[in-house]
Amino acid sequence: MSSPFTASPAASTAATPAAATPWPTRQPAPLDDAALAGVDAFWRAANYLSVGQIYLLDNPLLREPLTAEHVKRRLVGHWGTTPGLNFLYAHLNRVIRERKQSTLYVTGPGHGGPGLVASAWLDGTYSEIYSDIDQSVDGMRRLFRQFSFPGGIPSHVAPETPGSIHEGGELGYALSHAYGAAFDNPDLLVAAVVGDGEAETGPLATSWHSNKFVNPLQDGVVLPILHLNGYKIANPTVLARIPEAELLELMRGYGHQPHIVSGGFDGEDPLVVHQRMAQTLDLVLNEIGAIKLRAAAGDTERPRWPMIILRTPKGWTCPPVVDGVQVEGTWRAHQVPLGNARDTAAHTTLLENWMASYRPEELFDESGAPSRQITAHAPDGDLRMSANPVANGGVLRRDLRLPDFRNYAVDVPSPGATIGEATRVLGTWLADVIRENPDNFRIFGPDETASNRLAPAVYEATDKQWDAQLLPGDTNLARAGRVMEMLSEHQCQGWLEGYLLTGRHGLFNCYEAFIHIIDSMFNQHAKWLKVSREIPWRRPVSSLNYLLSSHVWRQDHNGFSHQDPGFVDHVVNKSSDVVRVYFPFDANTLLSTYDHCLRSVDYVNVVVAGKQPGPNWLTMDQAIAHCSRGAGIFDWAGTEQPGSEPDVVLAAAGDVPTLEVLAAASILRERMPELKVRVVNVVDLMVLQSESEHPHGMSDREFDSMFTTDKPIIFAYHGYPWLIHRLTYRRNGHDNLHARGYKENGTTTTPFDMVMLNDLDRYHLVIDVIDRVPGLGARAGVLRQEMEDARLRATQYTRDFGEDIPEVTEWTWEGAGAASGAFDATGGDNT
Amino acid sequence: MSSPFTASPAASTAATPAAATPWPTRQPAPLDDAALAGVDAFWRAANYLSVGQIYLLDNPLLREPLTAEHVKRRLVGHWGTTPGLNFLYAHLNRVIRERKQSTLYVTGPGHGGPGLVASAWLDGTYSEIYSDIDQSVDGMRRLFRQFSFPGGIPSHVAPETPGSIHEGGELGYALSHAYGAAFDNPDLLVAAVVGDGEAETGPLATSWHSNKFVNPLQDGVVLPILHLNGYKIANPTVLARIPEAELLELMRGYGHQPHIVSGGFDGEDPLVVHQRMAQTLDLVLNEIGAIKLRAAAGDTERPRWPMIILRTPKGWTCPPVVDGVQVEGTWRAHQVPLGNARDTAAHTTLLENWMASYRPEELFDESGAPSRQITAHAPDGDLRMSANPVANGGVLRRDLRLPDFRNYAVDVPSPGATIGEATRVLGTWLADVIRENPDNFRIFGPDETASNRLAPAVYEATDKQWDAQLLPGDTNLARAGRVMEMLSEHQCQGWLEGYLLTGRHGLFNCYEAFIHIIDSMFNQHAKWLKVSREIPWRRPVSSLNYLLSSHVWRQDHNGFSHQDPGFVDHVVNKSSDVVRVYFPFDANTLLSTYDHCLRSVDYVNVVVAGKQPGPNWLTMDQAIAHCSRGAGIFDWAGTEQPGSEPDVVLAAAGDVPTLEVLAAASILRERMPELKVRVVNVVDLMVLQSESEHPHGMSDREFDSMFTTDKPIIFAYHGYPWLIHRLTYRRNGHDNLHARGYKENGTTTTPFDMVMLNDLDRYHLVIDVIDRVPGLGARAGVLRQEMEDARLRATQYTRDFGEDIPEVTEWTWEGAGAASGAFDATGGDNT
Repeated sequence: MSSPFTASPAASTAATPAAATPWPTRQPAPLDDAALAGVDAFWRAANYLSVGQIYLLDNPLLREPLTAEHVKRRLVGHWGTTPGLNFLYAHLNRVIRERKQSTLYVTGPGHGGPGLVASAWLDGTYSEIYSDIDQSVDGMRRLFRQFSFPGGIPSHVAPETPGSIHEGGELGYALSHAYGAAFDNPDLLVAAVVGDGEAETGPLATSWHSNKFVNPLQDGVVLPILHLNGYKIANPTVLARIPEAELLELMRGYGHQPHIVSGGFDGEDPLVVHQRMAQTLDLVLNEIGAIKLRAAAGDTERPRWPMIILRTPKGWTCPPVVDGVQVEGTWRAHQVPLGNARDTAAHTTLLENWMASYRPEELFDESGAPSRQITAHAPDGDLRMSANPVANGGVLRRDLRLPDFRNYAVDVPSPGATIGEATRVLGTWLADVIRENPDNFRIFGPDETASNRLAPAVYEATDKQWDAQLLPGDTNLARAGRVMEMLSEHQCQGWLEGYLLTGRHGLFNCYEAFIHIIDSMFNQHAKWLKVSREIPWRRPVSSLNYLLSSHVWRQDHNGFSHQDPGFVDHVVNKSSDVVRVYFPFDANTLLSTYDHCLRSVDYVNVVVAGKQPGPNWLTMDQAIAHCSRGAGIFDWAGTEQPGSEPDVVLAAAGDVPTLEVLAAASILRERMPELKVRVVNVVDLMVLQSESEHPHGMSDREFDSMFTTDKPIIFAYHGYPWLIHRLTYRRNGHDNLHARGYKENGTTTTPFDMVMLNDLDRYHLVIDVIDRVPGLGARAGVLRQEMEDARLRATQYTRDFGEDIPEVTEWTWEGAGAASGAFDATGGDNT
Repeated sequence: MSSPFTASPAASTAATPAAATPWPTRQPAPLDDAALAGVDAFWRAANYLSVGQIYLLDNPLLREPLTAEHVKRRLVGHWGTTPGLNFLYAHLNRVIRERKQSTLYVTGPGHGGPGLVASAWLDGTYSEIYSDIDQSVDGMRRLFRQFSFPGGIPSHVAPETPGSIHEGGELGYALSHAYGAAFDNPDLLVAAVVGDGEAETGPLATSWHSNKFVNPLQDGVVLPILHLNGYKIANPTVLARIPEAELLELMRGYGHQPHIVSGGFDGEDPLVVHQRMAQTLDLVLNEIGAIKLRAAAGDTERPRWPMIILRTPKGWTCPPVVDGVQVEGTWRAHQVPLGNARDTAAHTTLLENWMASYRPEELFDESGAPSRQITAHAPDGDLRMSANPVANGGVLRRDLRLPDFRNYAVDVPSPGATIGEATRVLGTWLADVIRENPDNFRIFGPDETASNRLAPAVYEATDKQWDAQLLPGDTNLARAGRVMEMLSEHQCQGWLEGYLLTGRHGLFNCYEAFIHIIDSMFNQHAKWLKVSREIPWRRPVSSLNYLLSSHVWRQDHNGFSHQDPGFVDHVVNKSSDVVRVYFPFDANTLLSTYDHCLRSVDYVNVVVAGKQPGPNWLTMDQAIAHCSRGAGIFDWAGTEQPGSEPDVVLAAAGDVPTLEVLAAASILRERMPELKVRVVNVVDLMVLQSESEHPHGMSDREFDSMFTTDKPIIFAYHGYPWLIHRLTYRRNGHDNLHARGYKENGTTTTPFDMVMLNDLDRYHLVIDVIDRVPGLGARAGVLRQEMEDARLRATQYTRDFGEDIPEVTEWTWEGAGAASGAFDATGGDNT
């Protein structure tokens, strides 16, 4: 079978390697001697290689007496969870081989990195990818040396680890990732190990409920395996210290059918534990097969999916006692149980005896390669968990069939002449994206897809997938659907990540303020993408697309707690290879932007857009041109003369800032027609950075010609204003740049009140211009006073009526002359 | 009884109002007619006032026919959860009154803000605090008008709401806050409403496990009330759509004893539901009393604390059907059920009939004040939930008894002459803080307190509190202790917030990278503090103190996934009134910094500190002086002449940058003694900002005299370098400032490898100086090449041996001459 890492997308039609007979049943029976020996040998070999990675620089097969010189000087890595991960890997290998069951292995306690690397080396995948780490004594030496070593590989499961979609760093997302991988992969089994430490995190605690969102017919199956080894870094775990009956109630309460496998305590023979595990695994896979059969027969009741509770000693098989202190079965086994292996000969011998206890002479042949017993135990080709193509989703990824977004354009006979809700228009296009891509595109959101106004259009094309109880009167809920909504940003993010990393497409729509809930998950995903881009065998996956709406400027319903535009600040700290930020400001620019995002790979695209009615500014042709450049001058809005420099630049990024800047420009045009105003709009925020800092960065020449080098720049920005300074501090014009934005002054207000509170309003922007352009004379002073008066009048109106003053709400670009005439222009000379 | 809001801290000795007979038992029996009528009247009145707040500008008691003019033009707010919150408030009032049970009300679905405001007005607290909202017709009119109105109050529960410690914005933290309030408040009952939408969030899903961390003797009691109204914004909720048996298993699996109250469906008479609720509440409080008694008698087994599942229709009592569409009992009741109340006379009449259905004529007297039946139903004084002093923790807060931190100083005979682990030294002081403050100071951490090296000292003073199973061999675990460890950053943050907001003290120690997990919780807390500071009756509470260790530069064990110094970037977006950021760089500066933090109020203090062995630079006297100024010149490290300006400024913030800057300075001192180098250190990051931006900001004069206006500044910073630019962009010297820091280049490395990877190492800092100081001549070119060579040599050493090169690890300030002699100084002219 060809390696999955060289498969071309075109050659792959199924998302997972086809099972000969999917979800077959096998009568549980004790393993025969050969099968038992195979499982045990694989496990011992993986354990041996794991210990070797943590400790050894040389003498990999202990063919000479172990000395301190063979031991790494700095011992790093995590042993505690590793024997359990290896145990499960070995057992899964058997059932995969017997059932031809395509299986993805997700390891929540992925700090047990050496285990996954060891198993991938044993089944051959590792050497296929990394040819210098071959199956030989020298290859094993290099395998050991590279682990958590300068210039080598990370100590955790990471993009470098074949077979993984799940970084072993931050804890909590194993089940979310697993379900994301299972969606739309009907023949896939995802074995998801949940560490009992990880199980204490919030995201993990709610992710058990994913079983109410998975469809037994069209989706794959997640088999959660809660690994109770009892301890975290320095504490027992909660779930290991509640009565077993209570734990079983918890798992049943989560909707699962739990099966307990416990063993390895007090020196229990692993062979006995193997038998127990093997029978449980067969039982559980048979249950899954039965559920699949019932679903195929039309049963639409939510099944009680099985799960396994595996209770083993932490650090199982390491030296039980070191220097008189219990290590195996305690938190002391979490990292390096023998941290002093070089210090004394006795300690070095203890390490040697530990490694020898796995009987390496039975496991590896003279050349250093795994024995026939071990290679025979591993499945073949793509059925190897380390080689499953779903874990390298880029090889399976098919481009989306995207309807031409131009056909969804809103009509814009002149700037601002029509009103639209940008996200609602986007929804009409997304509905057709869903129709055209019925099995590899999903929309995720924490109960906000309707609020963010992708409805009603998307619900004309699909439903929200929901496998819990349905009641009469439920709307847009169905057993299968393309929209995934659970009130957990963590779940949305985790599901989407799992879905993307296994080769599919999607977006996450969320309230802007609360996307901070997944700041740390974004960090991990951005890091994963950054590293993956540098690994040749990792093929590009679809970008992770955010659609952030209900944004900071429109929180009249929810107030201060819902105001935070800082996700962008967080995002731009990550590698510029990976992050992109867009501020489309009307329906057509949003359509153009999102089409671009859904075509892109290996990025995180943050798109902030409005859902409230607002002016449509650009025709679709203009929008495409503007979005392609990322920023541009609105000639139609400015008053500069061709061939000469303006007196001032009014710039905007974001829908509300764009509206206010244009309104300010209209006031200046009317009241100070001789002032040469340039209006600039930035839709791709990254163009502001230097070329050297971001690939989208404008050249200094472009920047200078757009923003000038010496004229005042008043920049109205959607978010915290200092980000504009941070992005532009190397630019020539920076010393003249004055940024306005959100500054945590919020209270409950009307929209314009909110804008005024942050000095981002049209009137204040005019004041900013007057204050910064020299030599404007007395008339400017009069206009300045009028602007102050207009602000007071607008504030007072909201206090009286609870809504914004008509001269603001009814302002239009076309009617701007009339609107500005509404000013109480005492003393104004309007000639 | 005096109002809690004017109580002086000295006058309060108990943390909560003393109960006459704490946790008494009362035989459950049906309410008599008067009690039943009281509950119902209070509920109807609160519902009436809630509807009034959402809809009415005028005509508050419907004493004239309701017209569109009386209705607000913009209708905002959340009705759906409100009648349930009011129902519980009314019932809790009865048992509080009967049992004199000090009770705090925490409302997870705090978007039901009008309900809490209504009840606080009914029991008199609101008018005591806000005298213009008095108990009169005019006061009621103002009460209605102000709600979610420009210049008024937020639509959610907020700092403005008396009786609350829990913002009603972001969901997920109700139980964490509730337990935080209960710790060390043995007589307090915290009734914590969990919305069934909120219950889907990760943080909430794990916070049920808080019951394994509460002590029945020394802590108060949390009574969780899961309010199943069945719907979120636009979806059913998960927990409302699983079989009841499964839900009961879930709650028992979480360790609770669930009690179900269901009612109000299909027009069921509320009086029947009242009886059901009342009996359950008595039963549950009796259970709690029995648990408390058993604990007092010496029972140390974890009790199965009761909880209540309340199932009612969403929007209960609103118009069932509007325009032919079912509203009550569906997600359509979530916000404003009658969004078109002004549109037609029929709709206005529908609103009028809805309000009239509560029979306001029975509830309010002629003057507009609540009837005697209602005032008699509410408890008195501090027993009113809206007046409980624990919800205004500042009035109860006692200063910590802080041992003199100078007594814990490490000896520093000369700079860098001794080595210390900063956090371990801090631990010795914290141990005594714990000893001196046995009931109002706690340390919170996600299983990292030992890893961050506050151990062993703190465990000589206390234990980790743990009410789950204990086993022989457990260390530092006990039924009561001052350290709270659960592997959930959300829990740590939520518990600490609840603990602080109820008047106590604490800190949260966490790995630096994973503090991003609570970015959004930090946002909400910072917003709470900002608003609270502007509310006269809210007394200052203790600052929220972070201790971030295992920081970005020392992730040799865990690698790239554990590298993120961006929390500081996130923090500085919040109001400068509230946020403080410190980078102590050795043991003595950390002691001095933390003493300051534990004395402060109403801030969020972020302290980033090292846990690995590193040089101690300053004596305690020097440390105090340096930390007091926030930044300073290390005269002993530079080579400038008194009275003349330096040629270059080497600045540092953070422990690793400080080490590298000093090592670079030692190289320059040795090799280019004629170069006048100034060494600056910044421990309080906020001094970099302008005075106008942050109260700690240096004046421009101070900044100029420290950093010069025209000399190159090489700034080695702990985090993302652009933050330094952002903070200093208004400074005169900014154009000459070159910042080095972390830039997402990480792989698994040794510490110095990591530093080199980001060009923050001593050798590269010397290169930066050479590249930026003009006129250094040929010798500089030679030194530059040596520095390049040293970097290559250091890199190669790590590849060979897996640890850092001795010329780096063994470098000391005192021995710097010898160390720099180690350079292979081919051609160097050292005169």
